[in-house]
Amino acid sequence: MSTTGRPQAVMSNPRADRVKDIAKLAGRSVRLKRRQFLAEGPQAVREALAAHRADAVPGGSGVVVEVFATQSCLERLPELVDLAAGVPLRCATEEVVSAMADTVSPQGIVAVCNFLDRPLNDVLAAGPKLLAIMCRVQDPGNAGTVLRAADSAGADAVILTEGSVDIYNPKAVRSTAGSLFHLPIVTGQDFLPLTDELRKHGLALLAADGYGNVDLDRLQDQSAGRRLKGGGDVDVMAAESKMPRLEEATAWFFGNEAKGLSAAELDAAQWRVAVPIYGEAESLNVGTAATVCLYASARAQRDWYSFEETEDLETQRLETE
Amino acid sequence: MSTTGRPQAVMSNPRADRVKDIAKLAGRSVRLKRRQFLAEGPQAVREALAAHRADAVPGGSGVVVEVFATQSCLERLPELVDLAAGVPLRCATEEVVSAMADTVSPQGIVAVCNFLDRPLNDVLAAGPKLLAIMCRVQDPGNAGTVLRAADSAGADAVILTEGSVDIYNPKAVRSTAGSLFHLPIVTGQDFLPLTDELRKHGLALLAADGYGNVDLDRLQDQSAGRRLKGGGDVDVMAAESKMPRLEEATAWFFGNEAKGLSAAELDAAQWRVAVPIYGEAESLNVGTAATVCLYASARAQRDWYSFEETEDLETQRLETE
Repeated sequence: MSTTGRPQAVMSNPRADRVKDIAKLAGRSVRLKRRQFLAEGPQAVREALAAHRADAVPGGSGVVVEVFATQSCLERLPELVDLAAGVPLRCATEEVVSAMADTVSPQGIVAVCNFLDRPLNDVLAAGPKLLAIMCRVQDPGNAGTVLRAADSAGADAVILTEGSVDIYNPKAVRSTAGSLFHLPIVTGQDFLPLTDELRKHGLALLAADGYGNVDLDRLQDQSAGRRLKGGGDVDVMAAESKMPRLEEATAWFFGNEAKGLSAAELDAAQWRVAVPIYGEAESLNVGTAATVCLYASARAQRDWYSFEETEDLETQRLETE
Repeated sequence: MSTTGRPQAVMSNPRADRVKDIAKLAGRSVRLKRRQFLAEGPQAVREALAAHRADAVPGGSGVVVEVFATQSCLERLPELVDLAAGVPLRCATEEVVSAMADTVSPQGIVAVCNFLDRPLNDVLAAGPKLLAIMCRVQDPGNAGTVLRAADSAGADAVILTEGSVDIYNPKAVRSTAGSLFHLPIVTGQDFLPLTDELRKHGLALLAADGYGNVDLDRLQDQSAGRRLKGGGDVDVMAAESKMPRLEEATAWFFGNEAKGLSAAELDAAQWRVAVPIYGEAESLNVGTAATVCLYASARAQRDWYSFEETEDLETQRLETE
């Protein structure tokens, strides 16, 4: 095995055992057995290394096990060398790095990473305000998109139920565009015990469901009304109507791309919320629906923009107008 | 050529000239020359036929030129036979339909369709309230996703500038999930003359830009404030601040996935609007950003939900709560 800080031979044999060994991480069973996966390309490796530094526990195994990069990649991106301080970093030829990777063009760098899963209890103990739950989402690209949307919307964690795609699948990792390393992930959860835990921790359970009877835009208007009026009449009326409040702690369920949420999953939710379709589209895909839902919650959970602040924005209008 | 209403031999030779001829529609140059493309699979063909019926002009060439389907597909989906009344419909073997299609599994049905482009003037003459403009979007999947989002949000049309991906690319057609046939499309527009026309027709030009200095959530709050307060103080303040109003007629510009909008494109917009990133994600992809922006406009352009309506919603809370 390699160590840092000492000059080493450049790995040049793409058929070497160590290279084949890493290439095997493309397979789910090998990933599960080793509890490791591969981050490919500068963006993913950068985020992995940043997470490794942020997470650093003395004696802990950390996020990144080892980095393999071409000389030209390291010359092009010297900040990665600094970020990798304390992590084994091996120089390898383009051919070797490509042989390790699933990506057609890993751009000269890959990192072997430890699984990032956290226990559900740790996530819930932190008092989350916004959670994204994927229920048997199967397509790695969709799963990655939902995770990236959850990160963008500032969700506290992403949870995958048993039967979902492996989030460490190379295509899923790519689709997260680095977000995989940004927020806690919980995997392999049995659906019903999970919903019990979520309820116990005071989260409202909202199912994103194209056939849902609660309109997301109505919830957004109600939430805006409460926030703008500061808890007056609107607040009372909404309380009486027992509608969900987007500004409160929420867990969103997103279903399988082909079949949506199952009857059992819908039953376990407290409300079935539809993103309205204003045109003729039959539905939204799970990635875009999740984005709209999570952003609606994110907006509602933050302070109302003060209108007094608008004055300093006059300058923001571009000159061309 | 085939005619309808008369029993015909089942096409069974995947190497026949007619089959090869249709398979050539996978190539852009052939599509452009013929001004035709292929819709593949039951969903796309259904939407194509529905558009053909809605569009029917006596003596016009219509949307669908010819449909090819397997016997088992027509037995499984008899409504497609009714929808296809008046359109040449040929029976073919699974092998022949697959040889025509780009899709690995076209599920036994394809339709040769005429290009759907409309002239820009027709679209603008209809007084659009919401337009999605793709500026050099290159990935067919992204282009399809933006188009589907525009349809979902009830946009009046989608416009692609010169240098964008061909929206009739098989992968783009698939990604639209049928939305390609739902709303007017304008292609190949030169950017600057286009923006001139949009301004002349009173549309506000908003560039979706991750580095934009106007926060989309702020615009949403301002719009909600105006609508809730019915044009009171908030309205005056927002007018003074000269911020864009989401409830007014708007054209959104969405840029190239890798490079975003160019400096010239940003300059031509009146405002640069950012979807806020509440987490650590670097950015949203163009498909999800477009969804969030278009839905924000769609919401703002519709009536505020009356809070008096909430009472009848009490029953909507599910029993399990």
